[in-house]
Amino acid sequence: MSRLADAAASLAEAGQRMDGRGWVPGSAGNLSARIDEETIAITRSGVHKGRLKPSDIIEVGLDGTARAQGQKPSAETLLHCQLYRLFPPVGAVLHGHSVAATVLSMAGEISFSQYEILKAFGFATHEVDVDLPVFENDQDIARLATVLEPVLATDTPIGYVIRGHGVYAWGTSVEHAFWRLEALEFLLQCELERGRRK
Amino acid sequence: MSRLADAAASLAEAGQRMDGRGWVPGSAGNLSARIDEETIAITRSGVHKGRLKPSDIIEVGLDGTARAQGQKPSAETLLHCQLYRLFPPVGAVLHGHSVAATVLSMAGEISFSQYEILKAFGFATHEVDVDLPVFENDQDIARLATVLEPVLATDTPIGYVIRGHGVYAWGTSVEHAFWRLEALEFLLQCELERGRRK
Amino acid sequence: MSRLADAAASLAEAGQRMDGRGWVPGSAGNLSARIDEETIAITRSGVHKGRLKPSDIIEVGLDGTARAQGQKPSAETLLHCQLYRLFPPVGAVLHGHSVAATVLSMAGEISFSQYEILKAFGFATHEVDVDLPVFENDQDIARLATVLEPVLATDTPIGYVIRGHGVYAWGTSVEHAFWRLEALEFLLQCELERGRRK
Amino acid sequence: MSRLADAAASLAEAGQRMDGRGWVPGSAGNLSARIDEETIAITRSGVHKGRLKPSDIIEVGLDGTARAQGQKPSAETLLHCQLYRLFPPVGAVLHGHSVAATVLSMAGEISFSQYEILKAFGFATHEVDVDLPVFENDQDIARLATVLEPVLATDTPIGYVIRGHGVYAWGTSVEHAFWRLEALEFLLQCELERGRRK
Repeated sequence: MSRLADAAASLAEAGQRMDGRGWVPGSAGNLSARIDEETIAITRSGVHKGRLKPSDIIEVGLDGTARAQGQKPSAETLLHCQLYRLFPPVGAVLHGHSVAATVLSMAGEISFSQYEILKAFGFATHEVDVDLPVFENDQDIARLATVLEPVLATDTPIGYVIRGHGVYAWGTSVEHAFWRLEALEFLLQCELERGRRK
Repeated sequence: MSRLADAAASLAEAGQRMDGRGWVPGSAGNLSARIDEETIAITRSGVHKGRLKPSDIIEVGLDGTARAQGQKPSAETLLHCQLYRLFPPVGAVLHGHSVAATVLSMAGEISFSQYEILKAFGFATHEVDVDLPVFENDQDIARLATVLEPVLATDTPIGYVIRGHGVYAWGTSVEHAFWRLEALEFLLQCELERGRRK
Repeated sequence: MSRLADAAASLAEAGQRMDGRGWVPGSAGNLSARIDEETIAITRSGVHKGRLKPSDIIEVGLDGTARAQGQKPSAETLLHCQLYRLFPPVGAVLHGHSVAATVLSMAGEISFSQYEILKAFGFATHEVDVDLPVFENDQDIARLATVLEPVLATDTPIGYVIRGHGVYAWGTSVEHAFWRLEALEFLLQCELERGRRK
Repeated sequence: MSRLADAAASLAEAGQRMDGRGWVPGSAGNLSARIDEETIAITRSGVHKGRLKPSDIIEVGLDGTARAQGQKPSAETLLHCQLYRLFPPVGAVLHGHSVAATVLSMAGEISFSQYEILKAFGFATHEVDVDLPVFENDQDIARLATVLEPVLATDTPIGYVIRGHGVYAWGTSVEHAFWRLEALEFLLQCELERGRRK
């Protein structure tokens, strides 16, 4: 119970920070944190992620079903569960909709090179070429997860984007996931600006 | 009286959020909420919408006349009344002036396609083509309302824009109207960015 | 003394709002309010306008000299004094440096047409063509004031810009001047966006 | 001890202001202040600069080694030490990663001309041409410092940029360094906007 309350507090704060940057317009976005090996805490659907209350965070098993009867998690919960299942060190997953991610994902492929901030993802140097995978949007989330699975399992990306939809980022804790999301959004913003100059 | 006080508090908060995003420069914008079937609460003209006080919200009948003598509602009140009259589920209407709405409406027609966030407006999928109607600005608001009426009544849009002026968004409550406004402005911002790339 | 304290409080708040929008980088900008027919309160030079303390606001005569010995007002004080001298209804003058004003003033002339928000400056309709005068920057402020004088006196503009420098806006009170500044910056931001699309 | 506590408070506040502007995404950036002729206070590596706690600031000698055993300063500490060693008046150094600095440094050389705000760096007039040196990024910070040394020592620049990485700014105090950083970022933002128009 205490772990749920802690997770809810951390997720509410992360939601406020995402809202302050304009990444969760309307009721967009999903935020989650791992409770234990088989359970995560995740935001309910249909709430504004910039003003989360403790009751807006529910417990869900790694198969995507709510622990409590009558609670309906977001359809996208399955994408969160997939990351926790594939990667035991993952402690939190943040999904938001930014203008940069939306626009760039609608324009083509996304890759980053020569950015110092790539070191935030564990690279030892800026002299790397890093792809950010872009997947076609699909309202059938189970099917989308099937498409994602081999890409995630084979060569773990730094995050991913669903076209016209938004970014998924993760980390060992909510704070760490937020840092990686912030770094990703920074990279996307840079690429958006560079695209305007070409 | 209590419903007016509640509406005033919700509208003041929505005004602060709109101001924080730069959508109500100077004394621009109008915010309203339904009190009952025949009455709405709406912002007085000539006040900054980011710092509304309870006395800045007045009661107006659906014909646009103030309930209290001596109070002069904004001329644009009629556009709010029209939405409440046409659509009984509408509980709040928010009108702001954003840079994106202003610039795009001066450049031509506006439509959205393949955006996940379109689901905020009740679409079951991102695979839709949605127009955001743009109307010519007119200082004669009664005449403008007459032009709007058939468009609104025939095929309810997700909101509308007056050229060089701003967006009208609505919802079942102030919170819901704000979510829809935020989603609309997100879409407009994306289109503005994409326009730069073409 | 009370009027100075009131002016200082209003100017400090306006400075915070300008800082929040990025219009007073470093120690840029000057803010003033009229105390009486012959005296104004104005920010000292060399302070950050987003964090003004009461001691950062000093009293100056309309000739630009400080009331208290040893206080040195900003050189640009003369431009404030000029507006108070020419226009008795002016109660406050706000000068900031925005990216939009700086970039557009370096690119050429500036004018606005068909914007609803032009009504903030007293126009009855959006169907007007309004110039925002751009003056060459000059470190000799007395000389710059001489160049400004006939333009201001003949046909009062809605504000003005010094090239590569920033905007001057004014109003009957600090709040009113801020509204007009906000409207001006909104117009400039719109024109900046439209310039990118051409 | 008191000087360290003072430095930590000032640096934490500067970090919050930098975070508010989006200049320290993830754990990016380093902030430092001079304690005495031989010691500086600098942020630990691996912390978010927008939410610094006193324990996140450590004391380091001008050779870059931590005063306390077991503390590991950031590799970039050497670049801070270099500035304190070369310039006795320097009291603080701020390094952040902004979108504008990153994008412009990846596009070529950077120079500023005819900007009023250049006076923030001690120029008597806007009629100057000022280069902002751009250095190639290098994960070997000692080697990078060797490349920087002659440029810094010969003709002190207003700051510098490491390509794809970010800005270094400094001043006589944390507040002064922040003003100069803000002025630099303003100039970079203006140049970014102007680049879009060409």
